[in-house]
Amino acid sequence: MTVADVLNDASAQLHVDLETIIDNYNTLNAQSNAACAAVVKADAYGLGMEKIAPALFHHTECNTFFVANLVEAVKLRSILKGAKIYVFNGLFEDHVDIYLKQNITPILNDPNQIQLWNNKNQPCGIHFDTGINRLGFSDKQTEEFFNSKHNLNIDLVLSHFIQSEIPNHPSNEIQLDQFMRVRYQLPNAKASLCNSAGIYLGEDYHFDLLRPGIMLYGGNPGLPKRPVGITQAFEIKAKILQIRELEVGMSVGYNSLWTAPEKSRIAILNVGYADGTLKTSDRNSFVYIDGHIAKVVGKTSMDMIAIDITDAKFDKVTVNNFVEILGSNITLEMVAENSTLGHYELMTGIGRRYNKIYNLRA
Amino acid sequence: MTVADVLNDASAQLHVDLETIIDNYNTLNAQSNAACAAVVKADAYGLGMEKIAPALFHHTECNTFFVANLVEAVKLRSILKGAKIYVFNGLFEDHVDIYLKQNITPILNDPNQIQLWNNKNQPCGIHFDTGINRLGFSDKQTEEFFNSKHNLNIDLVLSHFIQSEIPNHPSNEIQLDQFMRVRYQLPNAKASLCNSAGIYLGEDYHFDLLRPGIMLYGGNPGLPKRPVGITQAFEIKAKILQIRELEVGMSVGYNSLWTAPEKSRIAILNVGYADGTLKTSDRNSFVYIDGHIAKVVGKTSMDMIAIDITDAKFDKVTVNNFVEILGSNITLEMVAENSTLGHYELMTGIGRRYNKIYNLRA
Repeated sequence: MTVADVLNDASAQLHVDLETIIDNYNTLNAQSNAACAAVVKADAYGLGMEKIAPALFHHTECNTFFVANLVEAVKLRSILKGAKIYVFNGLFEDHVDIYLKQNITPILNDPNQIQLWNNKNQPCGIHFDTGINRLGFSDKQTEEFFNSKHNLNIDLVLSHFIQSEIPNHPSNEIQLDQFMRVRYQLPNAKASLCNSAGIYLGEDYHFDLLRPGIMLYGGNPGLPKRPVGITQAFEIKAKILQIRELEVGMSVGYNSLWTAPEKSRIAILNVGYADGTLKTSDRNSFVYIDGHIAKVVGKTSMDMIAIDITDAKFDKVTVNNFVEILGSNITLEMVAENSTLGHYELMTGIGRRYNKIYNLRA
Repeated sequence: MTVADVLNDASAQLHVDLETIIDNYNTLNAQSNAACAAVVKADAYGLGMEKIAPALFHHTECNTFFVANLVEAVKLRSILKGAKIYVFNGLFEDHVDIYLKQNITPILNDPNQIQLWNNKNQPCGIHFDTGINRLGFSDKQTEEFFNSKHNLNIDLVLSHFIQSEIPNHPSNEIQLDQFMRVRYQLPNAKASLCNSAGIYLGEDYHFDLLRPGIMLYGGNPGLPKRPVGITQAFEIKAKILQIRELEVGMSVGYNSLWTAPEKSRIAILNVGYADGTLKTSDRNSFVYIDGHIAKVVGKTSMDMIAIDITDAKFDKVTVNNFVEILGSNITLEMVAENSTLGHYELMTGIGRRYNKIYNLRA
């Protein structure tokens, strides 16, 4: 084994299936005649923008990416020279030159930002708020904008849903109506309203450009169930560091939160809360090993968890075996159900100690 | 501004005060005649091992470090050629050569690991379990170990507390007694039992080497209060991206979880749950700006939170101002009180998008 092989072997694994992300993109893209972009902010929701963005760019129709801030945009530009890159969080005075030089497209969120980009000739997006009241022009600012003169090359008009994961919520139609009124005043710009869940509200909502994030990676934004063709694109595997035999009454972990009710066999795994995803303390959490579900026992440590492998079905389990923490058997849905965290938080909470393995067919 | 300056300016900030970490180390070191090591696993509890370990090594008496796995050890060895480095999670067959070549000291946790290191001449630690039942020799394995022959250069004997943060818990004395019995059979090795909280159990527990982690960084392992001389060594500062005026009845964020009870002024900040620390959704969370506490309103987004700055005391607050998310005014204690997470999880959950700023006097 090379040093690199050994170091990879010494870590738990985060597998990211780029083929599945490509399939998910194609599923989303097929829902509409609109073009489909990819939201890759927060390091592609914790899974690695550097690998995922090029996979989409080179193997799908995706040529447009959205990130949260300029740091993410500059990193993405260094990887993908030819991609269109929009930055959600707005334009700030000292940053203008970098946007211009690196051909990164700011999304302007208020009148001051309009002034910074006026007469720059390069394209921009504009975010018109339709009720979520985070970023974007307020109603009053929107009215003033359309009554004022400016010299902008606006190539995108966008807004953001409050709760598109609830299809019958009246706010969706209200936001749609408001967005349409703005959108028709800038007919030469592309219009974009749909995040992942919004895509499933139907074609009235699609306009010119979809911009899914979480569903690219196979997470569920809160829909009653994951749509057909959207598959969880990653798994986490930990390794068994040690196996212990416990007598009745012996306890495991900090504060003795689990005590062996019988003679027990316990495996210690090399992931803990420092590796994210795993807010398992004091809750019912499970892993998957050798074809069976096993229960997490005791309090989660920073670098370790313990699982109960007493049952005879685990007889073949040994040190160095890999254990599925999250994957096709221990799904995001199962983990979220036993957690105070949702899919988004579980994904973006994935830690940085994993050996990251990306697969893509040649 | 250089490109690097601009990119730093486009991120929220994580400030780590290396002077405070040095002061905390000196406070802990002064509690005992024992030597004092530093636990820097999980990237120094989320704060950056690459800066913190050298600061301790070069500016204190600390020359011994503990990490969780071989990857962390190799990284640390590349930074500190002269340090003693112990790895908690045990020795595995394919990894032996790297331990030997890089002069990294494994902590052996079970009889198989003894075999792997036998006759290697280089030093090792041995972990004897005294009741937490994670890693380390069981009672039976310990007895067998002392009845068998081996050729090991054992320079450290250690065990780990179940609940040293509860000074009167009977488990502390039980573990102490058990550790002493083992320790006296290996009189030439240094003995180490105390994590951060253990240090405050008094000198009977100190033996030869203390190994604090969280208190180096100013976190509290669960003691009734932070001891004198231990100060929170880091702060997180976010920037205001936009300020909005809301009419009565307008809501903020996903699912409209907060609605303006009066005409309100809201600031949007550039940190969200992807930046860790911030499981603020649906709870009472606070930030500190311009000398005053402000309330977080609405659901936390991936990249943003909103705060209420309606009160006249916030009249001077403007876009681009920095806001304390965590620091001397918004302490770990305050955040933990409003969270399902403790100090350890809040710290190791700190995200990777921050502009990290380390200060150390020349």
